[in-house]
Amino acid sequence: MQIAVIGAADTTPEESGAAHAVGSLVAGAGAILICGGLGGVMEAACRGAQKAGGTTVGIVPDTGHGNRYLDIVIRSGLGHARNVLVSQSADAVIAIGGSYGTLSEIAVALKNERPVFGLSTWKIPGIIPCATPEEAVGMAVRAAREASHPKG
Amino acid sequence: MQIAVIGAADTTPEESGAAHAVGSLVAGAGAILICGGLGGVMEAACRGAQKAGGTTVGIVPDTGHGNRYLDIVIRSGLGHARNVLVSQSADAVIAIGGSYGTLSEIAVALKNERPVFGLSTWKIPGIIPCATPEEAVGMAVRAAREASHPKG
Amino acid sequence: MQIAVIGAADTTPEESGAAHAVGSLVAGAGAILICGGLGGVMEAACRGAQKAGGTTVGIVPDTGHGNRYLDIVIRSGLGHARNVLVSQSADAVIAIGGSYGTLSEIAVALKNERPVFGLSTWKIPGIIPCATPEEAVGMAVRAAREASHPKG
Amino acid sequence: MQIAVIGAADTTPEESGAAHAVGSLVAGAGAILICGGLGGVMEAACRGAQKAGGTTVGIVPDTGHGNRYLDIVIRSGLGHARNVLVSQSADAVIAIGGSYGTLSEIAVALKNERPVFGLSTWKIPGIIPCATPEEAVGMAVRAAREASHPKG
Repeated sequence: MQIAVIGAADTTPEESGAAHAVGSLVAGAGAILICGGLGGVMEAACRGAQKAGGTTVGIVPDTGHGNRYLDIVIRSGLGHARNVLVSQSADAVIAIGGSYGTLSEIAVALKNERPVFGLSTWKIPGIIPCATPEEAVGMAVRAAREASHPKG
Repeated sequence: MQIAVIGAADTTPEESGAAHAVGSLVAGAGAILICGGLGGVMEAACRGAQKAGGTTVGIVPDTGHGNRYLDIVIRSGLGHARNVLVSQSADAVIAIGGSYGTLSEIAVALKNERPVFGLSTWKIPGIIPCATPEEAVGMAVRAAREASHPKG
Repeated sequence: MQIAVIGAADTTPEESGAAHAVGSLVAGAGAILICGGLGGVMEAACRGAQKAGGTTVGIVPDTGHGNRYLDIVIRSGLGHARNVLVSQSADAVIAIGGSYGTLSEIAVALKNERPVFGLSTWKIPGIIPCATPEEAVGMAVRAAREASHPKG
Repeated sequence: MQIAVIGAADTTPEESGAAHAVGSLVAGAGAILICGGLGGVMEAACRGAQKAGGTTVGIVPDTGHGNRYLDIVIRSGLGHARNVLVSQSADAVIAIGGSYGTLSEIAVALKNERPVFGLSTWKIPGIIPCATPEEAVGMAVRAAREASHPKG
């Protein structure tokens, strides 16, 4: 299972807290956390996931090292086009806050018919709004499990 | 001046008509038309632009030939990531109708601080809604002109 | 017909001269010139093509304006991955001198079974070595014409 | 440490054997194995790495699942442009056999000044030829270690 956590590099303390909780819960469920590899929501989610013993993957827009909580760094050098890879690599996506970059990732995920669970993020038809990190991760894990092991 | 016209491959007759008018007006203003190079809104806009003597560029997602009204084909092979190149290559963007693919192009344009003019498209903060092709192209051409020749 | 001219941004006077001649001949044959949009071989080829009344397309690695002899700029933001688009968009490729970046474009062209004509460039099986700009463009135009209008 | 193993999907038994040994040694050294995620050399290397308890990452050109020995799949959808990401994400590259696709990855690695160690592969200035999997992995691990922990 691969679950993407998306959100802005510039973030509020509330969003960072939610991202940390989401990362921790994703790792606890045994899923790999995929993100854009930079700061803000991405970094908080990775920190939470690593603390909980999970594996974190950052697909960074440049060819740098990304944030300090990445187990694996994909140095894409693709600029904004790396957003497409983040969404596309995930079995389910959790969006936290976010601005236009996050919106582009949401749009690609929905275009690819990946489920997107939202915490205080864009109101776009197709996003499933969630009230808490627990709810978002619970639903994302179930969706990702079905995507990886489709019923016969 | 490079102006992108974005919208879906599956489209309504109204959207096609608007796209054709937009393409024709973009060409009439002397701007190059950039698009995703496939059918629907993209094809109608290119047809309008070519009829008016303009130049059309299609950045296609595969390595094929795109629609039949392209003067130049960029065979990106990038899949959905080609949307990023369409938005990024434009001095101004005109969005007509559209679904999630179009939304991803709008998001990238706004992220890059490119002006986006909308005809019956997504309601996203930052998009400037227009009532007619004439209004959309008029505003896009003015914005593109300022972007290419910034005042001292 | 779309013909790519590839080669390094750091270049010798001989390579620049050859690139200028190649650009001029490509335009004279009515083909569109595709390149990476930066300096050196790319700029010299574009200058030659524009002087001869041709159309030039630059697929730049960043989101900037490229060299001053571009009619159309694709602002890819893809870094080195833009090399793939240059090769892939061409019906035939002419390589002039060049280092590792040029080698990556040659490799992609040959992988895609596009003909590659070389002027003082890498010795790789599959490249057709040419002695003069006239020979290289003559062969590239014939190959590109066959690629665009395959015989029944 | 991230080490890329590159080579063709169509491969000989000797190359497969070498790739399996390389994968196993990369994992034994505690490095993460990055590859293009498909068959042939890529699959053999991943199989070797997983058997030795290592972690494997495949950056696939499509949006599919890649070979069955991948711990993490980056579904790039970028076609040949994904080769650039494989090379760019590695601290050191090991090339085994290979055709034009492999050549494009070698070229990007050398362009980015990443060390490339070769087993029966292209003869390109800059590649360090190795006689055995042990030699190639030994040198790659040392180079990757220096790249990740540069001396003050």
